[in-house]
Amino acid sequence: MGTEPVSTAASRSTLSRIMTSLDVNLLGTVHGGVVMKLVDDVAGVAAARHSRGNAVTAAMDEMVFLRPVRIGDLVQVHAQVNWAGRTSMEVGVRVTAERWNETEPAQHVASAYLAFVAIDDEGRPRTVPALLADTDDDRRRFAEAQIRRSHRLARRAEIQASRARGS
Amino acid sequence: MGTEPVSTAASRSTLSRIMTSLDVNLLGTVHGGVVMKLVDDVAGVAAARHSRGNAVTAAMDEMVFLRPVRIGDLVQVHAQVNWAGRTSMEVGVRVTAERWNETEPAQHVASAYLAFVAIDDEGRPRTVPALLADTDDDRRRFAEAQIRRSHRLARRAEIQASRARGS
Amino acid sequence: MGTEPVSTAASRSTLSRIMTSLDVNLLGTVHGGVVMKLVDDVAGVAAARHSRGNAVTAAMDEMVFLRPVRIGDLVQVHAQVNWAGRTSMEVGVRVTAERWNETEPAQHVASAYLAFVAIDDEGRPRTVPALLADTDDDRRRFAEAQIRRSHRLARRAEIQASRARGS
Amino acid sequence: MGTEPVSTAASRSTLSRIMTSLDVNLLGTVHGGVVMKLVDDVAGVAAARHSRGNAVTAAMDEMVFLRPVRIGDLVQVHAQVNWAGRTSMEVGVRVTAERWNETEPAQHVASAYLAFVAIDDEGRPRTVPALLADTDDDRRRFAEAQIRRSHRLARRAEIQASRARGS
Amino acid sequence: MGTEPVSTAASRSTLSRIMTSLDVNLLGTVHGGVVMKLVDDVAGVAAARHSRGNAVTAAMDEMVFLRPVRIGDLVQVHAQVNWAGRTSMEVGVRVTAERWNETEPAQHVASAYLAFVAIDDEGRPRTVPALLADTDDDRRRFAEAQIRRSHRLARRAEIQASRARGS
Amino acid sequence: MGTEPVSTAASRSTLSRIMTSLDVNLLGTVHGGVVMKLVDDVAGVAAARHSRGNAVTAAMDEMVFLRPVRIGDLVQVHAQVNWAGRTSMEVGVRVTAERWNETEPAQHVASAYLAFVAIDDEGRPRTVPALLADTDDDRRRFAEAQIRRSHRLARRAEIQASRARGS
Repeated sequence: MGTEPVSTAASRSTLSRIMTSLDVNLLGTVHGGVVMKLVDDVAGVAAARHSRGNAVTAAMDEMVFLRPVRIGDLVQVHAQVNWAGRTSMEVGVRVTAERWNETEPAQHVASAYLAFVAIDDEGRPRTVPALLADTDDDRRRFAEAQIRRSHRLARRAEIQASRARGS
Repeated sequence: MGTEPVSTAASRSTLSRIMTSLDVNLLGTVHGGVVMKLVDDVAGVAAARHSRGNAVTAAMDEMVFLRPVRIGDLVQVHAQVNWAGRTSMEVGVRVTAERWNETEPAQHVASAYLAFVAIDDEGRPRTVPALLADTDDDRRRFAEAQIRRSHRLARRAEIQASRARGS
Repeated sequence: MGTEPVSTAASRSTLSRIMTSLDVNLLGTVHGGVVMKLVDDVAGVAAARHSRGNAVTAAMDEMVFLRPVRIGDLVQVHAQVNWAGRTSMEVGVRVTAERWNETEPAQHVASAYLAFVAIDDEGRPRTVPALLADTDDDRRRFAEAQIRRSHRLARRAEIQASRARGS
Repeated sequence: MGTEPVSTAASRSTLSRIMTSLDVNLLGTVHGGVVMKLVDDVAGVAAARHSRGNAVTAAMDEMVFLRPVRIGDLVQVHAQVNWAGRTSMEVGVRVTAERWNETEPAQHVASAYLAFVAIDDEGRPRTVPALLADTDDDRRRFAEAQIRRSHRLARRAEIQASRARGS
Repeated sequence: MGTEPVSTAASRSTLSRIMTSLDVNLLGTVHGGVVMKLVDDVAGVAAARHSRGNAVTAAMDEMVFLRPVRIGDLVQVHAQVNWAGRTSMEVGVRVTAERWNETEPAQHVASAYLAFVAIDDEGRPRTVPALLADTDDDRRRFAEAQIRRSHRLARRAEIQASRARGS
Repeated sequence: MGTEPVSTAASRSTLSRIMTSLDVNLLGTVHGGVVMKLVDDVAGVAAARHSRGNAVTAAMDEMVFLRPVRIGDLVQVHAQVNWAGRTSMEVGVRVTAERWNETEPAQHVASAYLAFVAIDDEGRPRTVPALLADTDDDRRRFAEAQIRRSHRLARRAEIQASRARGS
């Protein structure tokens, strides 16, 4: 169990809801934190489906906001596992918004990449299946996840070195 | 206005609340998305105080979860502006948790770095004051914000190049 | 405008979210009222998309609960306009649930049929486009909506008659 | 136990609260789904009181909205068991609204009829006491519940027949 | 206007709802703050009805909790104006709880006395009608409100004197 | 255990959050009940820290509102144990508000004094440590808590006597 590779399609997940006046920040647009929480929700579903069990957020690697989200937008968050290591996974999330009462195409409003760790019932890391990239897009996402991963490690090393010099 | 440098101390902000059963995920610990929303809230306060007006989240550059947060934890989120450019700022947030009914020292449970853009009443970017780092720690944070910034730019360039090769 | 018939496909809408401990009734399963509210949300989207403007709930004609919904279920509500009259529409909603961390097929847990009235900016009824049923299924739904409509009228007449006899 | 008939008065229940900006839909009036949830709440109380134990919503047979509900309305939902069968009950709910800061009479804004099934600790249907209609109004409600019930059965039969013809 | 005395009956108001898992504190019983908020809500209705307009909470003079409230309790808060001065009123609130699925009598779980000030559209105090106590109970409540008022004034004077001595 | 006196500093606690449109009453300012709930939250933390265990609200002795709180205010609630008896404590709470995006000093908007009782796992009262007042301010608060306590007892006696005369 956990040794059969799992296809990208198996983890694809979507949540969607309409933004209301409960979701608004002090500037009148939708609170960035509301979108972050939706992103974390759907990423957790994708990670659980790939790893066939529980998984917790280890980090949000990057989240970019492209356009403001408004009250009355129907927001969809689409997630899939982009990359899988021994016990951790990268989940990519794409956020779109469309007016709830129009039929125009949805717009891309934010993207995020999160690292999840699969855990067992005692909360210890457990191994996850390898990822089987289905399409060219999936293979591109896998390669880009590796770029993000190597930059994250390089950045941390440089910050450690900077602190060492500073001391 | 906007030309006098502003000291780091002026943007330091703290929010704090107790985690309840409303904040729990399906695993029984506090939802990562709940913490992200608190982080975005306090970072917005710090960015508004430095820039003396409204500011919106442009990106969350990195958020790392170090320990699970539990129901009954008193969570504090501490933010300050680490770096300021022409219209954007990096805000650093440190999240601590302590048991609500104990007097033991708070533990560091998460860190985050966010980019905010100052906006005017029409939602267009506006210039922000320069940052005056007060202490050695503030100067270290300024330097590390520059490292994160250069890595973000390098990572994006590498991903663009990878996509160009792929096409 | 409003005179071109609109195809069934144009009003099809889906919302989806995970049920949490906030959604639970005193018996530990998901509150019927929580599902009703989701159903009303998505039906409002479908009615607005068919009628190209605002629409309000006039009645819920029938809602049947087939299976209990549990914490941790990913619930999807799918709506479409089944029938359109002069100013009113029947919207059909199908509710499915699947475990958030499994990949088994979603189960049908509830169905509902609602009547919406399209309104203008002063809240007065306005005419809606005719409905163009796309498929055999859509034609069957149109026919069944007419059966529900005739039974609703007959039931009201019989209750009025019963009251008249009683007085 | 469960064999003594129970009077209508024993199940009469009322809930009441003020509608706030949290209850508003995208048109600025109170969300139909908010009222549906209140209706389901109070109907559950009436069904539990008649059946002396737990009961779950099996269906909402009909809910009619007569007038919009506004922010600042004090809304009351009044429920009672109208009819009781072997394991199921019909609960009638009347919704009224009055301005919170005025003393004018409350207006009738919606009515609903729901079917509840009494369940035991394993979730299996259990028998409910017979209903003892107290007043002429209660006897009228009992008769009308039977009319709704016979129409519901006839409607389902006709829809089944229509599907059979269609196949 | 505002000069005709208003009878006690005109301000009598009730709100009622079922306590759910959303209302619970870290000890598993209903949060005192949840009950305080309900008390403030209903007292605001009573003050608005007596004064025929807006009124704001100036103080909560005393609130006593007699018994814990539990999940599944149907809580009722009953308010009336006990005493009226020139621009301020004392509102008394009685809180009762009964199990949602039982028919035993409701128990008295808390009492509170609040001072409200009637305000005009600019937020300035405005005069309120005199209070016409209807019954012996209402006259007793009027007398007790005056006792509370004189003790509040005496207490404040003694604390001022104590501070003066201390300085 | 419980016999070592505990210093005032050990119970000092702060919660802080930004008021949003979710916190507003029908007049557009922050709901008094929202502030009461925050006050009860932080007082519970202070009582638990002094008594080293669970404690429940027995009464709110007095809460005074000095200024309205607005959407966008960063509200801080500061609590400490002012006085400790055998099983009960008085907790004082000071509420301040400042604009979230300004750097002007916070304003004092409300004060409250609450009585808490320490309880054991069966919900029975348990003894609490004596209070060691640290500073002149703490000694003043201790003296004022005793004044409030004696007035509360005197007020209750007078109301009892008044009721006895009335009967």
